Amino acid sequence: MCSVLTRVRPIHRAVALTLRLGANTEGSSYVATQRKRFSPGVSSAAANGRFYCSRAAKTEGLLFRQLFEVESCTYTYLLADTNTKEAIIIDPVLETMDRDLILVKELGLNLIFAVNTHCHADHITSSGLMKKKIAGLKSAISKHSGASADILLSEGDRIPFGKHYLIVKETPGHTDGCTTLVSGDESMAFTGDALLIRGCGRTDFQQGCAKCLYDSVHDKIFTLPDDCLVYPAHDYIGQTVSTVGEERKFNPRLTKSKDEFVDIMNSLNLPKPDKIDISVPANLVCGLHGL
Amino acid sequence: MCSVLTRVRPIHRAVALTLRLGANTEGSSYVATQRKRFSPGVSSAAANGRFYCSRAAKTEGLLFRQLFEVESCTYTYLLADTNTKEAIIIDPVLETMDRDLILVKELGLNLIFAVNTHCHADHITSSGLMKKKIAGLKSAISKHSGASADILLSEGDRIPFGKHYLIVKETPGHTDGCTTLVSGDESMAFTGDALLIRGCGRTDFQQGCAKCLYDSVHDKIFTLPDDCLVYPAHDYIGQTVSTVGEERKFNPRLTKSKDEFVDIMNSLNLPKPDKIDISVPANLVCGLHGL
Repeated sequence: MCSVLTRVRPIHRAVALTLRLGANTEGSSYVATQRKRFSPGVSSAAANGRFYCSRAAKTEGLLFRQLFEVESCTYTYLLADTNTKEAIIIDPVLETMDRDLILVKELGLNLIFAVNTHCHADHITSSGLMKKKIAGLKSAISKHSGASADILLSEGDRIPFGKHYLIVKETPGHTDGCTTLVSGDESMAFTGDALLIRGCGRTDFQQGCAKCLYDSVHDKIFTLPDDCLVYPAHDYIGQTVSTVGEERKFNPRLTKSKDEFVDIMNSLNLPKPDKIDISVPANLVCGLHGL
Repeated sequence: MCSVLTRVRPIHRAVALTLRLGANTEGSSYVATQRKRFSPGVSSAAANGRFYCSRAAKTEGLLFRQLFEVESCTYTYLLADTNTKEAIIIDPVLETMDRDLILVKELGLNLIFAVNTHCHADHITSSGLMKKKIAGLKSAISKHSGASADILLSEGDRIPFGKHYLIVKETPGHTDGCTTLVSGDESMAFTGDALLIRGCGRTDFQQGCAKCLYDSVHDKIFTLPDDCLVYPAHDYIGQTVSTVGEERKFNPRLTKSKDEFVDIMNSLNLPKPDKIDISVPANLVCGLHGL
């Protein structure tokens, strides 16, 4: 398995390669949908260098698809090396598994990893069922998620596909097992529910921690280049993509001080996600709970 | 207006620059949602060179955003020159106008054109109301649509924004006023309802013509490069983007013979679109009907 998962920090290798089959009670919380959208005081000046697509192209030979599941408003991402055809899928959803498998087949891809950015509460992952359909496919999730998977990810891990790779950044706060996956050239960041477009994941239950989320975003995501594309796990109003530079300027929550951010997050009063009691137990075992 | 709309074929200039305020009874038909999705007989071999994002990046200094309206499953596209900030918006939707205007403001863009690929039947365009919000914004639609707009488009027209431009291709069949807008470097085609991802617009009322649509797609879109990205006006299962090469291989309708295609289109038996009686009259006047 060393060939499929390489680490920047060798000390973590043994942990990352552990196959954990047990599940615990950790889970993710639902994404906050109530957002202030455009603060009058925020500058509306143009940001330089927000090249959606231009940046992604720095990596030659990369196939990239953003896919959408309409009920949970989840984005699934498919990335592949156009030469070797090795591919990974990020946050696949049970309801759209057939669509994704058809596309993988049509494009002639060899899907080697199904990665979840965290243990979702609002939908069931298809990673487990997908493994039953595709020989050799490995599931991956943070070692802090409490979920079982073939590969448990840690800070600094590299997830390779062909000549490309994603780097794992641990960005807890929405859940304690949240990760952000950053492309090797830092042109794309798959932020899960840590950073949403002009928003962020809620932090009010199941290991949620507003202070931790604030630090995660500021230390691990806002330190990426301005024109790094932000691809979140969800968006509820069809924005599809943002950039680190935009979120640093315009995110109505994360442009605040840490204390203000914590106050905002603590006063959201969001309802419990509809599917949490089904999704979290299922996602702790790659979505295979009860199947 | 010559400075904002240039033509490949000068003979059409006078027509294109005509300002038509009248409206007739033409309208668009709703997009077919019932599609056969994966024909067992179709090859699943990998296509070469499908570089989502890589291709778009051939045009340096292009800002590109795909936006989504969830009720009608409409994609709106925002393109801009990152230097001059001149921008165009394609197929904007009334319900998401505020979202789009906020983004335009945040990005510091100067929106100069709102273009509709055709007279939609399933949603109301925001182009007219947007003109009331942004000084200098011009609306544009095909001269064959029967709709009024500041600029009536013809085959070969160029729609410039900064150093970039889109070329107008007339692709009738779904309606007789359908256009496909192709980026100058042929890396992106905004196909409206002519070509959808693994589908196409319906042709069963309001100037719909299956034979015309078949010819339009084969003559005007399938002649583009294999890796030209196909950005449709709608997608109902979250696929977001395709390529000309993929559609040539995998489109379950348009890979058939013309006769077979006509038979398929004539036997769809789709219900009348919910909003057609509201949308078409409104869209004939830039969405301002009854406002």
